[in-house]
Amino acid sequence: MNVTTTDPRDGRHRTTDLTETDESGVAVIAGQASRAAQWLVDSGRLGRARLLDAIAASLESRRGDLVATAEAETGLAPARLDSELTRAAVQFRMFAAVLHDGGYLEAAIDHAADTPIGPGPDLRRMLVPVGPVAVFGASNFPFAFSVAGGDTASALAAGCPTVLKAHPSHPLTSHASADAIESAIRDLGGPAGVITTVYGEQAGRWLVRHPAIRAAALTGSVGAARAIQAAIDERADPIPLYAELSSVNPIVILPGAAAGRAEQIAEGLFASFTGSGGQLCTKPGLAFVPADPGGDRLVDTLRGTVDTAGGMVLLNQRIRDAYESGAVALEKAGAHLAARPRIEAGAGFTVAPTLLEVDLPGLTAELAEECFGPLMVVVRYRDVAELDTALAAVPPSLTGSVHSGPEDGTEAVRNLVDVLAARCGRIVFDGYPTGVRVSWAQHHGGPWPSTNAVHTSVGATAIRRFLRPLAWQNAPEWILPEELRDEYTAIPRRVDGRLLPGTAHQP
Amino acid sequence: MNVTTTDPRDGRHRTTDLTETDESGVAVIAGQASRAAQWLVDSGRLGRARLLDAIAASLESRRGDLVATAEAETGLAPARLDSELTRAAVQFRMFAAVLHDGGYLEAAIDHAADTPIGPGPDLRRMLVPVGPVAVFGASNFPFAFSVAGGDTASALAAGCPTVLKAHPSHPLTSHASADAIESAIRDLGGPAGVITTVYGEQAGRWLVRHPAIRAAALTGSVGAARAIQAAIDERADPIPLYAELSSVNPIVILPGAAAGRAEQIAEGLFASFTGSGGQLCTKPGLAFVPADPGGDRLVDTLRGTVDTAGGMVLLNQRIRDAYESGAVALEKAGAHLAARPRIEAGAGFTVAPTLLEVDLPGLTAELAEECFGPLMVVVRYRDVAELDTALAAVPPSLTGSVHSGPEDGTEAVRNLVDVLAARCGRIVFDGYPTGVRVSWAQHHGGPWPSTNAVHTSVGATAIRRFLRPLAWQNAPEWILPEELRDEYTAIPRRVDGRLLPGTAHQP
Repeated sequence: MNVTTTDPRDGRHRTTDLTETDESGVAVIAGQASRAAQWLVDSGRLGRARLLDAIAASLESRRGDLVATAEAETGLAPARLDSELTRAAVQFRMFAAVLHDGGYLEAAIDHAADTPIGPGPDLRRMLVPVGPVAVFGASNFPFAFSVAGGDTASALAAGCPTVLKAHPSHPLTSHASADAIESAIRDLGGPAGVITTVYGEQAGRWLVRHPAIRAAALTGSVGAARAIQAAIDERADPIPLYAELSSVNPIVILPGAAAGRAEQIAEGLFASFTGSGGQLCTKPGLAFVPADPGGDRLVDTLRGTVDTAGGMVLLNQRIRDAYESGAVALEKAGAHLAARPRIEAGAGFTVAPTLLEVDLPGLTAELAEECFGPLMVVVRYRDVAELDTALAAVPPSLTGSVHSGPEDGTEAVRNLVDVLAARCGRIVFDGYPTGVRVSWAQHHGGPWPSTNAVHTSVGATAIRRFLRPLAWQNAPEWILPEELRDEYTAIPRRVDGRLLPGTAHQP
Repeated sequence: MNVTTTDPRDGRHRTTDLTETDESGVAVIAGQASRAAQWLVDSGRLGRARLLDAIAASLESRRGDLVATAEAETGLAPARLDSELTRAAVQFRMFAAVLHDGGYLEAAIDHAADTPIGPGPDLRRMLVPVGPVAVFGASNFPFAFSVAGGDTASALAAGCPTVLKAHPSHPLTSHASADAIESAIRDLGGPAGVITTVYGEQAGRWLVRHPAIRAAALTGSVGAARAIQAAIDERADPIPLYAELSSVNPIVILPGAAAGRAEQIAEGLFASFTGSGGQLCTKPGLAFVPADPGGDRLVDTLRGTVDTAGGMVLLNQRIRDAYESGAVALEKAGAHLAARPRIEAGAGFTVAPTLLEVDLPGLTAELAEECFGPLMVVVRYRDVAELDTALAAVPPSLTGSVHSGPEDGTEAVRNLVDVLAARCGRIVFDGYPTGVRVSWAQHHGGPWPSTNAVHTSVGATAIRRFLRPLAWQNAPEWILPEELRDEYTAIPRRVDGRLLPGTAHQP
């Protein structure tokens, strides 16, 4: 069956030349991935670093085409897509730096020694690739969380061939991205199967059930994660699913912050909850604002900004429908409409941004549900002391944010941060959770339902998902990977318990 | 209902003063654990290191009582139990060293900087405790994989209160171990709930379903793991289960090794498969021996040793019955009996060690099943080239071992190691998989069914199971944990991508 593509700006469907992958097609692709693994291993750390740099360059060399293709499939603004493509290239280059550094291998050597329970053998341990990985592309980042995304970059860096399940919202972008990556692989002499793409929901299920696949990564909904987990549960041997799911990202404005910079925060909140049509995992869905003059000023400003905003094109019909029914459900659950501009109904998936408001005692579990799209619920509180209980009722999230002023005092901030730290993966101070920096110290994860695991899908440590430990006991020197031989000192290693930094620095 | 204890040496049951924990008892204990978490956090890394050292000392101060109690409940030899108690103490002290070192926090700092996609905020990341942990004690290590085991040591080191589900084979040992640990905690001013114990199968299920429990660890059977996972699946929020399960631990003797040291290897194999009654996760269950004169000499020696061996007391009736029916099943599946001494049937759970033999073409999936207890299947092969296919049919394991001599050549060894590396977590050269060293570079894990995860349950990195990443964005200095402040340099940290070793070394 041919795959269709839809332009969210006018809702028009078009049939592509791509076809949904059938079960035998998935098996062929998984077999190719399996056979390609050795090439990635043989390339070595530095060879894979060169590959990642070449992929980044290849993506950038096709920037114009890729951005235009993605614009027609996602309705996202060209400037945003341009920046996202840069981010995708940055991710490949960051993992090249991770490979040069080599610390990600967690190399450790314990020389033979007497121990209190007898002679201890020589033991050497490092992380090795798990094998072929299945990656499910996300709707909302056609580059950075899709075929050319961080999951692909970290899996290839780890040495794992990667099979992408293309998101149905952007099949042509997926195909063009894969083509750019494959071209870099071919130029370096790589085989088919290092990166491949499958199309269709059922293909994704066949993929994670295939014995060759050793791990899966998903950025998507709780429902999608359940469906993929159910397919994995049919395997004789379970494999890990690293899923980044649903997040409401509470943001707390303390009275001092509202009094001191109401307008500035209103502007920041608006940009954060409506940027990219509010279709970001880190979109703040709940803002706690004091019921005081500073808070009133903040909400008034925000209301004015929302009321004069234009329409926003959402990614696809399903997201548009869920957004509209989600807004209705929130209003029925007791939030009142604070602002929503009147938007001409068009043929495409255009919606109006929505600001809802509720007084803190009215905050219920229904009002704390994520609504994907340009919607935020403002929760007005009278007393900072009420926030602990309120935040404890908000589902755990990727992020939690606090804005404070000097007059709020350190104890209130510390207390809030303790509450947020127990329930999220990143705490943002006087800022907004959107705009996730791609770097060594980033963490993009959090307790369920924000993710189902204790790993990150953004930042240098995302590579850990696609590695497993392996230990060598009393191995002859010649059979060890070079990183575990005594004389090799280029990378950080723990030798007899002591961490030694590497002598080769990043390029 | 009162808990019973059984002496495996005579099979006699005795009622204890301990009672099975009911659902409300589990809830009380989980609540205590939840409240105790703050004390462990407030103690800090070095405070927890002192606690672990104190626990090690407390266990050793009760050595005589603990060993005697365990002997009467497990039938294991006093020398073995004495050494196991030392190992348990070593594990607590190793995690104290891990805390002093601080590298386990994976602390990372990215200072604010311009990036290709705009200004990047200051980001700081480290690992924090997940919260209270449920640990399921194993039958076969009443100290080192039970209440006083490595799971407890690594969880407390991480800062997680630990609730033990005592193994029904050694309730009094569990109680006495918990008492020794609690006494050390009390002496340091700790609250109730840092470590607690529940009794009864159903209590284990209630425990992992309790919202306060944030992770679970198990050393046990695939069936036990499935039951615990089913209970976890009833939760609204899934938690990770780190399970160490079934392992057949293939060991390959190459012709050169058999020719050169047949008798020595026969002795080593016998000690490895019958030590502790063969009731070890790393017991070699399958030995591939060449069908040549060296191999004949090896098997003849082994046969002689087994035939003159005494009976061995197994841990409980279930294990004894499973051992005996397992041996019958293997013989029915085509292995022939190579050696088994005649043992007087006694009142207790004493069995005879069993050596089975099969020619390689007769090796089936049934013959490659783990049989817990002093049983090994010798697989005779004619050609080294047949081993690849044979090993690919053996279930993935914790370990794989290779014995070689100079005349075997490096290519044969390299080839075998590649096959084993894909299917196990530790490769042993010219040695035996039992006797797991407790150290920094150890890895005790492997692909399903040997474990369900990519983590280890032995060695310094076992602490990673009970930690989750947390990131701080643009945080004021005063609110950061001291390990993430600019001026703190005692521990290894990655600063702006560069790994800096800690300035404070282990004591």
